[in-house]
Amino acid sequence: KGLRIGMIAGDGIGRVVLPAAQRVLQNVPGIPTPTFVNLDAGFEHFQKTGVALPPATVQTLKNECTAAMFGAVSSPSHKVAGYSSPIVALRKEMDLYANVRPVKSVQGTEGRDVDMTIVRENTECLYIKQETIEDTPQGKVARATRQISERASTRIGRMSFEIALAAAEVKKQRGGNYGWQGPPTVTIVHKSNVLSITDGLFRESVRAVAGDYPGVVVEEQIVDSLVYRLFREPEKLSVLCCPNLYGDIVSDGGAALVGSLGLVPSVNVGDNFIMGEPVHGSAPDIADRVPSIANPIASIRSAALMLEFMGYVEPAAKIYDAVDDAIRKGFVTPDLGGKMSTDEVTEEILRNL
Amino acid sequence: KGLRIGMIAGDGIGRVVLPAAQRVLQNVPGIPTPTFVNLDAGFEHFQKTGVALPPATVQTLKNECTAAMFGAVSSPSHKVAGYSSPIVALRKEMDLYANVRPVKSVQGTEGRDVDMTIVRENTECLYIKQETIEDTPQGKVARATRQISERASTRIGRMSFEIALAAAEVKKQRGGNYGWQGPPTVTIVHKSNVLSITDGLFRESVRAVAGDYPGVVVEEQIVDSLVYRLFREPEKLSVLCCPNLYGDIVSDGGAALVGSLGLVPSVNVGDNFIMGEPVHGSAPDIADRVPSIANPIASIRSAALMLEFMGYVEPAAKIYDAVDDAIRKGFVTPDLGGKMSTDEVTEEILRNL
Ligand SMILES: CC(C)[C@H](C(=O)O)[C@@H](O)C(=O)O
Ligand SMILES: CC(C)[C@H](C(=O)O)[C@@H](O)C(=O)O
Repeated sequence: KGLRIGMIAGDGIGRVVLPAAQRVLQNVPGIPTPTFVNLDAGFEHFQKTGVALPPATVQTLKNECTAAMFGAVSSPSHKVAGYSSPIVALRKEMDLYANVRPVKSVQGTEGRDVDMTIVRENTECLYIKQETIEDTPQGKVARATRQISERASTRIGRMSFEIALAAAEVKKQRGGNYGWQGPPTVTIVHKSNVLSITDGLFRESVRAVAGDYPGVVVEEQIVDSLVYRLFREPEKLSVLCCPNLYGDIVSDGGAALVGSLGLVPSVNVGDNFIMGEPVHGSAPDIADRVPSIANPIASIRSAALMLEFMGYVEPAAKIYDAVDDAIRKGFVTPDLGGKMSTDEVTEEILRNL
Repeated sequence: KGLRIGMIAGDGIGRVVLPAAQRVLQNVPGIPTPTFVNLDAGFEHFQKTGVALPPATVQTLKNECTAAMFGAVSSPSHKVAGYSSPIVALRKEMDLYANVRPVKSVQGTEGRDVDMTIVRENTECLYIKQETIEDTPQGKVARATRQISERASTRIGRMSFEIALAAAEVKKQRGGNYGWQGPPTVTIVHKSNVLSITDGLFRESVRAVAGDYPGVVVEEQIVDSLVYRLFREPEKLSVLCCPNLYGDIVSDGGAALVGSLGLVPSVNVGDNFIMGEPVHGSAPDIADRVPSIANPIASIRSAALMLEFMGYVEPAAKIYDAVDDAIRKGFVTPDLGGKMSTDEVTEEILRNL
């Protein structure tokens, strides 16, 4: 397949930040020359065609692409018949079972010393979308099923342990007394004081594979107090292993911690496919600004993370460093208090490569 | 019944902070002389007797008490057969359908200007604890049911609107340009971009009663971005109307925002009963310290909040002011960077009354 990358810009600023990531991928040394294929998905596409995630998009990803980048998707503010989130569907269809979200501050800038990775289970929990509603004499009653399986919990556990080991290795190679300083550590996030069976299974499944990773310390934290610790002592957190919904909520907390959703990247990881995706949404409030002031960093870092998970560790590190340099020099968009446009930030990152 | 208050200290620091709240209730002017009855519940009680919430506790509350205070409960770190959280059970048995959690910073101290109230639905969502587990060829699969009803969502909506109006009234009377400055506003917190039926019903049920409160502005926010906004622009949030689990998680975020879980009070509110409860847990790490350094403020504020919801608005305000004075004068425990003991803080609050 070569390095053929599906580009699903989606809605709003997705159409601005994905091209920025593409420019970086076209210019980073050390990878095979990538080619790109633009693919449709999103709420706007649904409004035009009645389909949020066209089967052709999934087919092209499966048959032609090595990896993909996803931009952002808008959520309608009211229930729209027939519409269902294309990103949730895509994660499921491609079996991208882990959503990996590193939250790091930049060494040498102000603010707290943060270096953690949220590893979010990406296929089940309340995201299976099994919901019912019935009329009763007391009014409507709706129910949703939250599914936690041993299989999905085990594989997200393994992924978390491996990420903890890999992060320690990178740290050893690159040095510096910045960020998380302890041994490789995974914190299991759950609410088993209430959900003793589902979150109990999650916790036990992750613990059950811990023995295969003897170098990794295992901790656990109830999700509400984890959110508390996230803000009170972020430097004491390293890899967080979370069921789907907790991971969703915690990662927005992490973004607040480092200053902007516009900074936080993610990859959706399956056994045979990687899809980079900024954690932010489609930002309709700024989507139509010309020149654009959307922060391209989350997307550019997501592209790097995608490369890293494909094994291109050095090129990924080059991109991370180029981004950090741009931030240190003050090339930042208004969400970070700067005055730069999307293009100005992107061009500085390209110069730093 | 007079003013007879059930005191359920529970586990850990619950046994330290509840007596502090009791001293304040015994000394605040403007309320009928209260009497107290100590009642059992908690994980330690379960370990001794096999019962976490004795029926006698519930019966005494129902038959003899006007209101109650709950301390804290420990969560076992592994699944314990037969144990189930007594606070969750108590909220349900007493039909305490709203958990009201004001998160406020103290005027005249450093830090951000926060004045919001989290109104958490307290009887359903995943807290109905309907869980199953089965063995399949692919391993164990566990499921939990998340229930959202029109009835429960409607009444938590009404409670939120009323709290928004009451807060605006208090503000008008007490003056000052501190904290939330806008019109009475309720933000509905949900995740209907994924849970369109359950969270859709929650959102629509709350909106359906908005017409009865024409002075209140209704907004909404998806729970993950709400956590982001909580830290990025807390001064723009006022009353948050949340399904049970989101409310649980968001309120720990709120506690981090104002500096300590040891500051944040709550009341569990039913149509005929009020139970004050600090948001913090049993803090086993410091529970046995002598002299105790547990922060009594969350419990003392919970006692005030209990009085406020019973209609003793002026005595409640006296307690709030006495607490704020103590904080401004630096009478604070180590969680807030101070050196005071539980007793020293409590005594300063008593002097300020
Ligand atoms: C858009 C939404 C369905 C999505 C999610 O909840 O997973 C988003 O919040 C995210 O974090 O990627
Ligand atoms: C102890 C636990 C069951 C409880 C809850 O989840 O409601 C606690 O976290 C709270 O916030 O009161």
